Amino acid sequence: MTRVEHLNGTPIGTGARGTRTESDSMGSIEVPAEHYWGAQTQRSLIHFSIGDDRMPKAVYHAYGQVKKAAALVNQTAGRLDDARRDAIVQAADEAITGALDAEFPLYVWQTGSGTQSNMNVNEVLANRASQLLGGQLGTKAPVHPNDHVNMGQSSNDTFPTAMHIATLDVVRSATLPHARALARAIRDKAELWVDVVKTGRTHLQDATPLTVGQEWSGWAAQLEQVLARLESSLDALHDLAAGGTAVGTGLNAPDGFAEQIAATLADLTGEPLRTAPNKFAAQGSLDAMVSVSGALRGVAVALMKIANDQRWLASGPRTGLHELRLPANEPGSSIMPGKVNPTQQEAMVMVCLQVLGEDSIVAAAGAQGNFELNAMRPIIINNVLHSATILGDACVKLRTFSVEGTELDTERIGELVGASLMLVTALSPVIGYDEASAIAHKADDEGTSLREAALACGVDAAQFDAVVDPRRMVGDPHRDLGIR
Amino acid sequence: MTRVEHLNGTPIGTGARGTRTESDSMGSIEVPAEHYWGAQTQRSLIHFSIGDDRMPKAVYHAYGQVKKAAALVNQTAGRLDDARRDAIVQAADEAITGALDAEFPLYVWQTGSGTQSNMNVNEVLANRASQLLGGQLGTKAPVHPNDHVNMGQSSNDTFPTAMHIATLDVVRSATLPHARALARAIRDKAELWVDVVKTGRTHLQDATPLTVGQEWSGWAAQLEQVLARLESSLDALHDLAAGGTAVGTGLNAPDGFAEQIAATLADLTGEPLRTAPNKFAAQGSLDAMVSVSGALRGVAVALMKIANDQRWLASGPRTGLHELRLPANEPGSSIMPGKVNPTQQEAMVMVCLQVLGEDSIVAAAGAQGNFELNAMRPIIINNVLHSATILGDACVKLRTFSVEGTELDTERIGELVGASLMLVTALSPVIGYDEASAIAHKADDEGTSLREAALACGVDAAQFDAVVDPRRMVGDPHRDLGIR
Amino acid sequence: MTRVEHLNGTPIGTGARGTRTESDSMGSIEVPAEHYWGAQTQRSLIHFSIGDDRMPKAVYHAYGQVKKAAALVNQTAGRLDDARRDAIVQAADEAITGALDAEFPLYVWQTGSGTQSNMNVNEVLANRASQLLGGQLGTKAPVHPNDHVNMGQSSNDTFPTAMHIATLDVVRSATLPHARALARAIRDKAELWVDVVKTGRTHLQDATPLTVGQEWSGWAAQLEQVLARLESSLDALHDLAAGGTAVGTGLNAPDGFAEQIAATLADLTGEPLRTAPNKFAAQGSLDAMVSVSGALRGVAVALMKIANDQRWLASGPRTGLHELRLPANEPGSSIMPGKVNPTQQEAMVMVCLQVLGEDSIVAAAGAQGNFELNAMRPIIINNVLHSATILGDACVKLRTFSVEGTELDTERIGELVGASLMLVTALSPVIGYDEASAIAHKADDEGTSLREAALACGVDAAQFDAVVDPRRMVGDPHRDLGIR
Amino acid sequence: MTRVEHLNGTPIGTGARGTRTESDSMGSIEVPAEHYWGAQTQRSLIHFSIGDDRMPKAVYHAYGQVKKAAALVNQTAGRLDDARRDAIVQAADEAITGALDAEFPLYVWQTGSGTQSNMNVNEVLANRASQLLGGQLGTKAPVHPNDHVNMGQSSNDTFPTAMHIATLDVVRSATLPHARALARAIRDKAELWVDVVKTGRTHLQDATPLTVGQEWSGWAAQLEQVLARLESSLDALHDLAAGGTAVGTGLNAPDGFAEQIAATLADLTGEPLRTAPNKFAAQGSLDAMVSVSGALRGVAVALMKIANDQRWLASGPRTGLHELRLPANEPGSSIMPGKVNPTQQEAMVMVCLQVLGEDSIVAAAGAQGNFELNAMRPIIINNVLHSATILGDACVKLRTFSVEGTELDTERIGELVGASLMLVTALSPVIGYDEASAIAHKADDEGTSLREAALACGVDAAQFDAVVDPRRMVGDPHRDLGIR
Repeated sequence: MTRVEHLNGTPIGTGARGTRTESDSMGSIEVPAEHYWGAQTQRSLIHFSIGDDRMPKAVYHAYGQVKKAAALVNQTAGRLDDARRDAIVQAADEAITGALDAEFPLYVWQTGSGTQSNMNVNEVLANRASQLLGGQLGTKAPVHPNDHVNMGQSSNDTFPTAMHIATLDVVRSATLPHARALARAIRDKAELWVDVVKTGRTHLQDATPLTVGQEWSGWAAQLEQVLARLESSLDALHDLAAGGTAVGTGLNAPDGFAEQIAATLADLTGEPLRTAPNKFAAQGSLDAMVSVSGALRGVAVALMKIANDQRWLASGPRTGLHELRLPANEPGSSIMPGKVNPTQQEAMVMVCLQVLGEDSIVAAAGAQGNFELNAMRPIIINNVLHSATILGDACVKLRTFSVEGTELDTERIGELVGASLMLVTALSPVIGYDEASAIAHKADDEGTSLREAALACGVDAAQFDAVVDPRRMVGDPHRDLGIR
Repeated sequence: MTRVEHLNGTPIGTGARGTRTESDSMGSIEVPAEHYWGAQTQRSLIHFSIGDDRMPKAVYHAYGQVKKAAALVNQTAGRLDDARRDAIVQAADEAITGALDAEFPLYVWQTGSGTQSNMNVNEVLANRASQLLGGQLGTKAPVHPNDHVNMGQSSNDTFPTAMHIATLDVVRSATLPHARALARAIRDKAELWVDVVKTGRTHLQDATPLTVGQEWSGWAAQLEQVLARLESSLDALHDLAAGGTAVGTGLNAPDGFAEQIAATLADLTGEPLRTAPNKFAAQGSLDAMVSVSGALRGVAVALMKIANDQRWLASGPRTGLHELRLPANEPGSSIMPGKVNPTQQEAMVMVCLQVLGEDSIVAAAGAQGNFELNAMRPIIINNVLHSATILGDACVKLRTFSVEGTELDTERIGELVGASLMLVTALSPVIGYDEASAIAHKADDEGTSLREAALACGVDAAQFDAVVDPRRMVGDPHRDLGIR
Repeated sequence: MTRVEHLNGTPIGTGARGTRTESDSMGSIEVPAEHYWGAQTQRSLIHFSIGDDRMPKAVYHAYGQVKKAAALVNQTAGRLDDARRDAIVQAADEAITGALDAEFPLYVWQTGSGTQSNMNVNEVLANRASQLLGGQLGTKAPVHPNDHVNMGQSSNDTFPTAMHIATLDVVRSATLPHARALARAIRDKAELWVDVVKTGRTHLQDATPLTVGQEWSGWAAQLEQVLARLESSLDALHDLAAGGTAVGTGLNAPDGFAEQIAATLADLTGEPLRTAPNKFAAQGSLDAMVSVSGALRGVAVALMKIANDQRWLASGPRTGLHELRLPANEPGSSIMPGKVNPTQQEAMVMVCLQVLGEDSIVAAAGAQGNFELNAMRPIIINNVLHSATILGDACVKLRTFSVEGTELDTERIGELVGASLMLVTALSPVIGYDEASAIAHKADDEGTSLREAALACGVDAAQFDAVVDPRRMVGDPHRDLGIR
Repeated sequence: MTRVEHLNGTPIGTGARGTRTESDSMGSIEVPAEHYWGAQTQRSLIHFSIGDDRMPKAVYHAYGQVKKAAALVNQTAGRLDDARRDAIVQAADEAITGALDAEFPLYVWQTGSGTQSNMNVNEVLANRASQLLGGQLGTKAPVHPNDHVNMGQSSNDTFPTAMHIATLDVVRSATLPHARALARAIRDKAELWVDVVKTGRTHLQDATPLTVGQEWSGWAAQLEQVLARLESSLDALHDLAAGGTAVGTGLNAPDGFAEQIAATLADLTGEPLRTAPNKFAAQGSLDAMVSVSGALRGVAVALMKIANDQRWLASGPRTGLHELRLPANEPGSSIMPGKVNPTQQEAMVMVCLQVLGEDSIVAAAGAQGNFELNAMRPIIINNVLHSATILGDACVKLRTFSVEGTELDTERIGELVGASLMLVTALSPVIGYDEASAIAHKADDEGTSLREAALACGVDAAQFDAVVDPRRMVGDPHRDLGIR
């Protein structure tokens, strides 16, 4: 093994133009000289330019952590010298921060193991580390992509490790906080409007009253609950495949490597990462990813209900329900002047439908494993990260541009609550279901008010007024919202 | 081969109780003596009692056609004597009419080729035919399930043949006529209400007016178009695998068998059936079924929109849109007296969601073929026939119990059309989009009528009244509906 | 309120034939006199005979618990007298045990709230309880379906309560134990074969070796993990909507009713049930059901991988992988004599695909709530219980009829492990990746053994034999399986 | 209306830096001065930056056709002067060719009608056309985005028109030719290997023989058939909504506009475009898109089967089926030297799963229309075009880098075909199914050859050799392939 001493501090960049010759077991190939990547990356670019879907950068940031951890563990165990360790760690740190993002151009649609993306990382870090140690790009010296950067590893165990870390990162830094801020904004409105009585609706039909605060508290509670489930689903991602190498047996990784790399990654990321108890399951399946995808889907299910409710409640302004006034952010129509539409809610509904579909892709792909490998990894990580990202972003937009600026049309709300025939329900315990039903039907058939129909049916006016009072029919909204 | 003479006219029924010994290549097994089925059916009942999903009877009715056609072709070619032909044909006719339905008890979740259902048919027809020729049940004489009833056939070619015939039958006899009757009922309403002007709604928000008839004509046209596509998709089912036998090469089926059985089946069913041009495709895939499933899914997509529109338009009666009055078929609530809900529409929406999901199952299963067989046949035929059936039935119910009895709340419709600020659109070509927009916003902000706002902005009153007339804004509804 | 005294012990059955007149707010209607159901059930049978999908019986068993609990709480609070309480409790107990199953004939495709099924229960229990107290069927006296059986309840809060209880019941009594027994059987095989070295396969291509026990332990671990997640998902079902009544405010239910009925149901079922913290979420969404469905889907994803692995490993016997010999339960082909197929695995794969599709239906339906109600309840409970049931049953069959009787073809396994060129991987740390790669390619190109190619490339024979030993390449299978 | 004369030939580019003030009915806003877009585009960029999904450029190319056609029709009818017509046409031509692609930056997740993308086009073309006529950017003069570029149009009718044209374009120029070239390459191989006898496999188990050519002809036929259905599905896209304007009534579009713009678009595109017979259906639904998506899904179903077959047939090289040798395009493993994997097939399988999922999104979104608008257009067009594109690209890659270079391992194929016990099927018509079955089981149990077992069971050696000849069991491959 070449002896090398210390880092030379060269800044990122090859300073070259044209092409450079790189090689692998298939032979040599020209690569763009300005880039660090090697032969296998170049081959993949040629063979897999399908659409314009690229492996998400978050995967490479996470892979940086994996390579850094491996270098640290390998050096500690005496398998890697200090200089190479230092060089790989610096290159990995550059990958982690995104400074090398332009070096990771591969497509999603590639080998199902993610090997090409792993080799992309190995090649880039090896060339960059070699550069830092004064080596020549393309010589694989002093740092070799397989023998040093990939030491003790396989794509089969490190790619799912990077998938887990990338997913933890995106869900924790984007989906959860953004969706929780939306839930908080909804709960704020619920508290603001805790006492505003409105008509309830079931089957889209008039039902007994509740308050606007109760209705919004239902949305907040839905969202809080699905987010708690999403967070809890992340625990499955803490089990890492790293150390299983080619097929889960850990061949070519020394004893203890699995535990050591997991512990090191836990240190680096702050997540309670641990080595997966069974590597054959961890490499042959992607069940933890499928589970997290299901939890993301659960968030979409709740958000779709909320967004739909909002756009229906804002329908109108003159011919719909129009209990809510959504902020007008843009003209709504190229032909109808003055039109304002619930566009944030429409965008959210579309995002939710996309997430539902992407989740079904993840599940289908998760079921396609064979023997020691599930070779559907790129499609799974791409869909999960995409879903997590658009859900988070859509929550930011919906909160900022719609929920926070939403107002009530209190006049309209007041009109509607008084009109609902379902206020008759309060009479039911007093006069019985059948009699109450007859009153409601009479009012509906004759187009009269409920009070008129009730009195005509012999209900005492004073009793009617005492019992049929929307404000008294909503229970205890303050208790429901946990406020006093 | 035993010599047999003619049918003895024994009515259906074994007249036996307890059990009877039947055998196959695995050995012998007791079967219920009252039934005609044999060893392989009995084994399948034991090994596959999963849930309570049974292979649809329509598959067996279609299989009766296949066995009848095979017997006719085999006799014509001199491979089967007249007596056995007659006996098999009679037994097959009994299967076709449903008289033997109780003899086909197998579960959906069985071998993926449908072999067990094919053997169920072979066993039942062999025993029944043997009985008709004076043989003893369980002896496979004089009619043998494999050698005679299955002569020249394999499950691999006949099961997809039966799938195609069963699907043609159910779609043509149920889905298409029932959905078309619904489309007709909707079109009848469209014609009835061709001139009733109402507010349009886009993005759930007030838009320019149209007539009720135009709106309903949109539903009718949607349905008519997706049904035309469904009918057209059926053509792919006319290609039959029969004659390909085990792997598509036609081994053990004589020359011409494929063409002859297709022609005979065409005669028997009245469908333009033909032998599939490539048997390897016909047996290794179920692409024609996937295509028909997609067309059924298209019908569900249209029906879901229609049902949703109807229930929203009927929402209220006091706090919703309530342009439509749906028939009240049942009390709507166990607690709210007098409540009436759009239950037929809800049932239809659920049916449509079920069909969408079942279609995705069919597609996923259709992609799981391997080599010379797609071994996902039972799940595909069960889902397709289920979707076709519930779609058809739901159309009958929606038509009978809701659409035909739906009435307009013309007073409400009139109120709403006059209120819409989007009538301003008619002014746009006259005063420009920007000015018209300012008027609509002014009316909305100030809660005034559009006319008031327009006049305040300097629009001439006479011009306003001439241009902003909902009746003149709906174009030519009669032409749109093709009526005069 | 009529005074009634005590139960008369009448056994189940009306002892009547022909029809009986029952009535509701729509008027009177004839019902079959032999049944207990009333007018609303009868109307639903007429209006919703769509396909042959019936509301699962488990829903009614669970509903029996709800009605029993409500009666107990209502009597304790002094709202219901002892005699009616006793009669309703007895009738409810009969429903719980399934003794009244024939009284619950309704279709899945009905009102989206499940009101018709709730009323079916109310009617049947009211008539049965009235009978027990000497009343006349159809008179709603002395026990009234709405005023007594449904006291303090709405379909809107009790149907999702029954959904949760039914799902807990089916998953706990069927899915979990059946799938765990399968996991146990797989683990038993893993332990039995812990030391049998075999070839690994990634991308379907030869990879480094592992033991049969390791491979099976991966399946067992997958299954154990998804089952743990399924069990954990059930906790969301412990939150009950009961007490929210019509729209979540608890109108017409007395203070404390929600907490009391939850506590009573906890006693009756042994589940840690509690009142949902937010009833608007609990009635407007079905998010907990969506989450459980996602967990069931996770089980299907794992089982599909396992079943597929098994059928591929058993492929052959002469032209496939054939490492496994699956039990032959039935003849495999109607045309190919002696054929044996992996039918249990095929059935399992189909079941898994069905579950994936049904889960996507549940998610789509879960997203369709509006305002105070998700009116997609019947489709959700039907799909979830169906998935839970067929998954459980399929596990029983796969275990009993395939896994437990599976044997190894040890000769074949031995042949294959020796042939794999990927044994070269063990040389990689010794001679480097690039050199090792050249050896493997040489062997492949020239059709020689790896040893021959290695020696030709200058590797020392003794070193080769020391390093390239499959038995030494599998790590520590005993540790992986947690056995010594 | 300002008088303008003729185009000034200014090349594309504003020549400005910093920002420019643009305005709409919401007020004024700063936009980047280097771009042509206006206020509404800028607002959309702010409000909808969700993920990084951008409306596909093909939509804008198609929209260029729509705007060009509208300008031509409007000028012909005397509603637009020649100079504005010329300027809009030139700007539209620039959009069509992609020269203005950088001006169309909007996100997929926006208003559901596509209004923001329509306004993006209107703004860009208006500013560009104004520039060509010597006007000032941002003044909406002499060409106004709504009054001139959008004249006679609404987003509601033009966006679905552009969707149809864009889909026709992408499917015809990419999906169909790329997939057909793959089908042709497969058929070429089928013809090349028409006579190479190999073992058949059903249920993954040994079955009767066929030739490699027959097997590949099955793949070719599958693909040809689904592509014919895809092409045929395109016809539904020929119905255009243009002319329906806001809600389908054609308000503000002059008589005949619908027919004229369809005819003009037919001229411009070469597609047999026609005005949709019912605009309410055309704008309230996206059923034609759902149908095309279903046909794309059908292509994916077929391709997934084909890709899976190929990777299984190539499995090995030493421990799998290995009848095929796929080209080795890249090293397959970062840890296992010399490993070669079926990566093109894996990419194809992932692409197919993605298409299946995207199709389910399209269907779900297609069902979400309300009243006069389906506000799920962006999600539908994005998924359909993405599916069409990646399917096409993946076909190019699979053909170029795998199918064309695939070779047979004829030695292996020969070994396997001779080993299959299912050759016994040929004996079945001679000695009966039961006897043949016993022979196969005997050979399997005793590990002998079929011939040995048959002779031991008393079959005559000469007869065996005459009947059990794989070459004679494959029927007529030349006829199956339509070659002589």
